[in-house]
Amino acid sequence: MGRVVPEQWRPTGVPAPHREPGTARIAVDLLGGDHAPAVVVDGALRAVDDDPSLHLTLVGPAEAADAVLAAVHPAQRHRLTTVLGGTAAEAVAAGRADALVSAGDTAVTVLSAARALGRWPGVRRPPLAAVLPTAAGRLVLLDVGSTVDPDEQTLATHARLGAAYAAAIHDLPEPRVGLLTIGTERGKGDQLRRAAARLLEDLPLRYVGLVEGSDVVLGAAADVVVTDGFTGNVLLKALEAAHVAKNTDETRAAVLLGVGGIVVVCHGAATGPDLARGIAFAADLHRHRRIDVVQRGIA
Amino acid sequence: MGRVVPEQWRPTGVPAPHREPGTARIAVDLLGGDHAPAVVVDGALRAVDDDPSLHLTLVGPAEAADAVLAAVHPAQRHRLTTVLGGTAAEAVAAGRADALVSAGDTAVTVLSAARALGRWPGVRRPPLAAVLPTAAGRLVLLDVGSTVDPDEQTLATHARLGAAYAAAIHDLPEPRVGLLTIGTERGKGDQLRRAAARLLEDLPLRYVGLVEGSDVVLGAAADVVVTDGFTGNVLLKALEAAHVAKNTDETRAAVLLGVGGIVVVCHGAATGPDLARGIAFAADLHRHRRIDVVQRGIA
Repeated sequence: MGRVVPEQWRPTGVPAPHREPGTARIAVDLLGGDHAPAVVVDGALRAVDDDPSLHLTLVGPAEAADAVLAAVHPAQRHRLTTVLGGTAAEAVAAGRADALVSAGDTAVTVLSAARALGRWPGVRRPPLAAVLPTAAGRLVLLDVGSTVDPDEQTLATHARLGAAYAAAIHDLPEPRVGLLTIGTERGKGDQLRRAAARLLEDLPLRYVGLVEGSDVVLGAAADVVVTDGFTGNVLLKALEAAHVAKNTDETRAAVLLGVGGIVVVCHGAATGPDLARGIAFAADLHRHRRIDVVQRGIA
Repeated sequence: MGRVVPEQWRPTGVPAPHREPGTARIAVDLLGGDHAPAVVVDGALRAVDDDPSLHLTLVGPAEAADAVLAAVHPAQRHRLTTVLGGTAAEAVAAGRADALVSAGDTAVTVLSAARALGRWPGVRRPPLAAVLPTAAGRLVLLDVGSTVDPDEQTLATHARLGAAYAAAIHDLPEPRVGLLTIGTERGKGDQLRRAAARLLEDLPLRYVGLVEGSDVVLGAAADVVVTDGFTGNVLLKALEAAHVAKNTDETRAAVLLGVGGIVVVCHGAATGPDLARGIAFAADLHRHRRIDVVQRGIA
């Protein structure tokens, strides 16, 4: 995965003044996903049916957009906008949507989001955060696939972002942050983890130390678990396959933290219902301004 | 985890001539495990009860050994030998046992095994291999915690060892070997995986390419999955906690491949029954000379 080129952060488009309260305009990447555009078309239709205050900005080829337009009830067509050129992130940057959803290649989505929306100060490599159900409640796992070769400073930044995200979405004033490793004695793990543990101990967050793979499932030890994007992605996909992580609507969509907009990434193998849940998740993040809360949390 | 110091490989002790066929002499590390020696004592007693042809070499402090001796039926005491000094690996190297079982610190066990038993030619960093139940059958996952910062050549060696191990224990003439990564398109993954994939393509084994976390659970894509010891350990512990990997007797014990003896490593949190299963597993490996088969397989 290539390095993201630093760019100045700029806020997402100012909300248009004419929309009714609660409206969410979601840019949908029609070409994202292993089974695109069919599942994206299906997901878009489901999302529009489910939420009367939702508007979709369909980004991609005319044929796929036309398939959505043809299938939606004529009375609902005003809720769909088609954008034939550019990326979903550019649609958000241009103020044509409040958030974006893509099931496309993660590296491409992360890169296009960072370029079009900019990154928050201090965030060089934005992580993808997923929410997993555990025996003890919900747990934020990050990174789940954006940064596969991070250094310890990146893990420290991700810890801060993850803590702010858990605080914002799970209403936890001081979420417990653990560093995923093997063996919980101090000094365990690989070189990266040993270096990262030293940094995490000095951060202004509730660092609870080293946690293991079992803790991601059991959930009792931490509310936020920090790991590299390689391990996080392997673990997330395995737990999804084991049906452990399929019990909530949130788990098959991850949010990109640290970019100047709301970016929801769905699994490449996402189904139509998965896409619809990803769109609903993006709308919820927008309506409750949760990403703004995250940014204030780490500022 | 420190590098294992290279030593010349030498074979394990020649079997004593006086034992009846089927006897297995297992060295048990009385101090290994989070709850040692109590669970080890419990496991040793269970193992002796379960298998009348089993002899145990108890390695550790006199108090723990005495606890086993006191609890076992007097008629069975001749099946127990106490070794107060040295390591379980040294007991195997000295010909006092056919195999060893430890639930102790993995790094310590691996190091002491490599030093006392030597390593096979070409094996610099012996991997721990675990067997997981999957929807499609059993799957060998390695490394699960021995080598946390491997290079690509180490992963290639582990692929060969894993294939030979799956052939030996699962009766598969040509097991399919996959490389664990994120995204299955060629070129996906981190630097290590991209380098390892090129090496694996040139090995004389049935390399089926890149696999994902879900494939470790579903099992349809590969019989052997190769990964670094960090990712493998995190994944194994998570799946165990998710009760996915608890369905067979083998899964909570891993075997160290590439050393001149039979070394079974149990989970640090192993229970008495887990230890007993680990001992039975070690006895089975000895009786069927499975590690010899593995060594011939990669020679």
